[in-house]
Amino acid sequence: MFSFHRRGFDLKEACWSGSLTFQQAVSTSTANLDEGSSQKKFASYTVFKGKAALSIHPILPSFSKLESGGSRLSRNGSVMLTFFPAVGQRKYDYTKKQLFALSPTEVGSLISLGPAESCEFFHDPSMKSSHEGQVKKSLSITPLGSDSGYFVNITVLNNMQKTTDRLSVPITKAEFAVMRTTLSFALPHIIGWDQVLTHHPAPPASSKPRVERPHPESEWER
Amino acid sequence: MFSFHRRGFDLKEACWSGSLTFQQAVSTSTANLDEGSSQKKFASYTVFKGKAALSIHPILPSFSKLESGGSRLSRNGSVMLTFFPAVGQRKYDYTKKQLFALSPTEVGSLISLGPAESCEFFHDPSMKSSHEGQVKKSLSITPLGSDSGYFVNITVLNNMQKTTDRLSVPITKAEFAVMRTTLSFALPHIIGWDQVLTHHPAPPASSKPRVERPHPESEWER
Amino acid sequence: MFSFHRRGFDLKEACWSGSLTFQQAVSTSTANLDEGSSQKKFASYTVFKGKAALSIHPILPSFSKLESGGSRLSRNGSVMLTFFPAVGQRKYDYTKKQLFALSPTEVGSLISLGPAESCEFFHDPSMKSSHEGQVKKSLSITPLGSDSGYFVNITVLNNMQKTTDRLSVPITKAEFAVMRTTLSFALPHIIGWDQVLTHHPAPPASSKPRVERPHPESEWER
Amino acid sequence: MFSFHRRGFDLKEACWSGSLTFQQAVSTSTANLDEGSSQKKFASYTVFKGKAALSIHPILPSFSKLESGGSRLSRNGSVMLTFFPAVGQRKYDYTKKQLFALSPTEVGSLISLGPAESCEFFHDPSMKSSHEGQVKKSLSITPLGSDSGYFVNITVLNNMQKTTDRLSVPITKAEFAVMRTTLSFALPHIIGWDQVLTHHPAPPASSKPRVERPHPESEWER
Repeated sequence: MFSFHRRGFDLKEACWSGSLTFQQAVSTSTANLDEGSSQKKFASYTVFKGKAALSIHPILPSFSKLESGGSRLSRNGSVMLTFFPAVGQRKYDYTKKQLFALSPTEVGSLISLGPAESCEFFHDPSMKSSHEGQVKKSLSITPLGSDSGYFVNITVLNNMQKTTDRLSVPITKAEFAVMRTTLSFALPHIIGWDQVLTHHPAPPASSKPRVERPHPESEWER
Repeated sequence: MFSFHRRGFDLKEACWSGSLTFQQAVSTSTANLDEGSSQKKFASYTVFKGKAALSIHPILPSFSKLESGGSRLSRNGSVMLTFFPAVGQRKYDYTKKQLFALSPTEVGSLISLGPAESCEFFHDPSMKSSHEGQVKKSLSITPLGSDSGYFVNITVLNNMQKTTDRLSVPITKAEFAVMRTTLSFALPHIIGWDQVLTHHPAPPASSKPRVERPHPESEWER
Repeated sequence: MFSFHRRGFDLKEACWSGSLTFQQAVSTSTANLDEGSSQKKFASYTVFKGKAALSIHPILPSFSKLESGGSRLSRNGSVMLTFFPAVGQRKYDYTKKQLFALSPTEVGSLISLGPAESCEFFHDPSMKSSHEGQVKKSLSITPLGSDSGYFVNITVLNNMQKTTDRLSVPITKAEFAVMRTTLSFALPHIIGWDQVLTHHPAPPASSKPRVERPHPESEWER
Repeated sequence: MFSFHRRGFDLKEACWSGSLTFQQAVSTSTANLDEGSSQKKFASYTVFKGKAALSIHPILPSFSKLESGGSRLSRNGSVMLTFFPAVGQRKYDYTKKQLFALSPTEVGSLISLGPAESCEFFHDPSMKSSHEGQVKKSLSITPLGSDSGYFVNITVLNNMQKTTDRLSVPITKAEFAVMRTTLSFALPHIIGWDQVLTHHPAPPASSKPRVERPHPESEWER
């Protein structure tokens, strides 16, 4: 008996594994995307813990058509972290979710994190506008100790509403290995390199073998 | 002279390499899958040892169509371990096989295992049903010592039949490197991220260059 | 107010993140490529620092058709580094760019660099011609110290014009992790192995299971 | 002035980089393959050293059609090492080549090799036949010392012809990084997992969200 409209749905019967797929989260987030989602695919990796859950999914980059007929990256993709608080035993309130979109370099920071290292990122949704500084988000990743995983914490400070939201999810070493591996997989995709490297034009007609310079000539042009 | 119906077929003539492909195992397991397998592809990595063999193959995730026309992950894939006992020199009894399906997080645990570390997973096929606890499966991976590989052990305890089955396969460092590399490759696929990240919609028509915010706006919406 | 024709465009309003996509750079470099770019895709990873910026993008290998109908690699791809100097606060002069194309082995050197290690590469655009030695390029990567990243430096010595251009970009550990991960992804593609390995011919018609030798027979032929 | 038929062709003019693509090697090896090569693609990574050269290319696995309409792996792919001796300065005799096909587990051994570790593999082309032991091949990889790379050595002992051929190629740390990275990329492909994991059947028609068990039911069947 699940419903997207009910606050605090119950996972008691379904949630017996940390790697449970959380379809509701994915489904709801669809509505947030302003782009035509008619063909899109959605998949998240979600961990449910006592006080909050953390769901992670990649977002594709955008390309723009060039006059030449080709296309170029117009916006990097990202890896979206979605936190939502527990409101009871295995009950989570998805309407109170907090989002944090990792840029490519922030993904690089996360996947190169040593067992005893921490990192922290700051985002301001209104940067460069007159509302700069009204809302401040920070994400920190700190070691649990003894090479046993990390705490992933989000803090959202809203100076207008005078509110501070904090959500914290402990991540085991195994869960972090999933994150590290899948984020490393996602990274070339969110900067668009997979599209550059797998678009293979047909080779020109048969030519006799030549040994060519290993470096394309463009290095020598200005 | 091979047959799927004979118990304890003979590998004497064929099996001279630890990396031998074990087609019979793959073929038989086909029958276990309830989904339309008309277009499916099957491939396992199998190691044959003195007392038992271990075969590993990935299982795709499932997606469900959304009303929007897109689709979302409805069930994670997994990595299936199949153990079967030796019943003579290079003879294995595939009818006595034991299965263990690794979830994404269990795959993460395996690929991040240090040379001297162990891990153990417990599965109950009847969890949440009235038969809970009747059958208990556990998989443990323990170091062989001196950075030379691992023992992979499965124990299946059946309280109804009062039976306990144990199978153990020693894995060399090289074989574990194959497992680690191919499981790391499989991980983004079994959580469906490859499908999310390689579904490239055509870019919109030519637009003048803009420098956009690196983070999609959805981070700032609720 | 951006323009490709203006020297020293202003990034003040747009540049607030090290991972900002630098479309102008990509767009301009299109013109440098002599091949039919009608279907090409372009994507760079760019870091903007105080004195210069560094943009990185992969270049596909070329294949030639064989008389058999197949094709073979005729030229390796590369990873192009583009440096351009700052000419003011967050202003960069793209017309003064310097290019350096990493060969596959040079990519191997970069991705295997230890935290305290350095590497240096030398290119001569006129090698084997009568102009050999007139222009010398070198790229060096040296540790910043304390496992905190690297300096990436390019020096272009022009003996004809009696000029020496030097550009240096400090790269954080997180940015280097992006480079290491995406260059590792690019490497099999720039030597063409992804095209060899993902061109799957249809399997022959149904045949009864055989256990075959794991090594193709071609090893035993001369 | 290159020719496939001439023994000892001259690389003087072309060979100025260790990452030079060696088209001749690829072209010639085409003839060795007994399968229809009409659509095949060929690409090698080759290092040229003083006494010999080493060229590496991946070989695809084979699949067989099943009666169900699907297909299953019938033969693992491999990674072929081709050695050929130098017969003068930058001259190599491709007719004296020696081949060694690495199985998946041998690839696992190579990519997990520590800086000070060695490994050695033995192949017998006539194993299980009456000619067993007539020709013995061994491949050894031994450290150069000081974390600076490896020696890759092949020895072919022919008891019939009373000959022993030995070829040895020193591999730098950067070249080994290329090998490790591209062999890690190749590994899931030569055991066929990429084909299993990227063959995505269309999802069934729209269904209401369900939370399913993370492990496919097949684990619980016998």
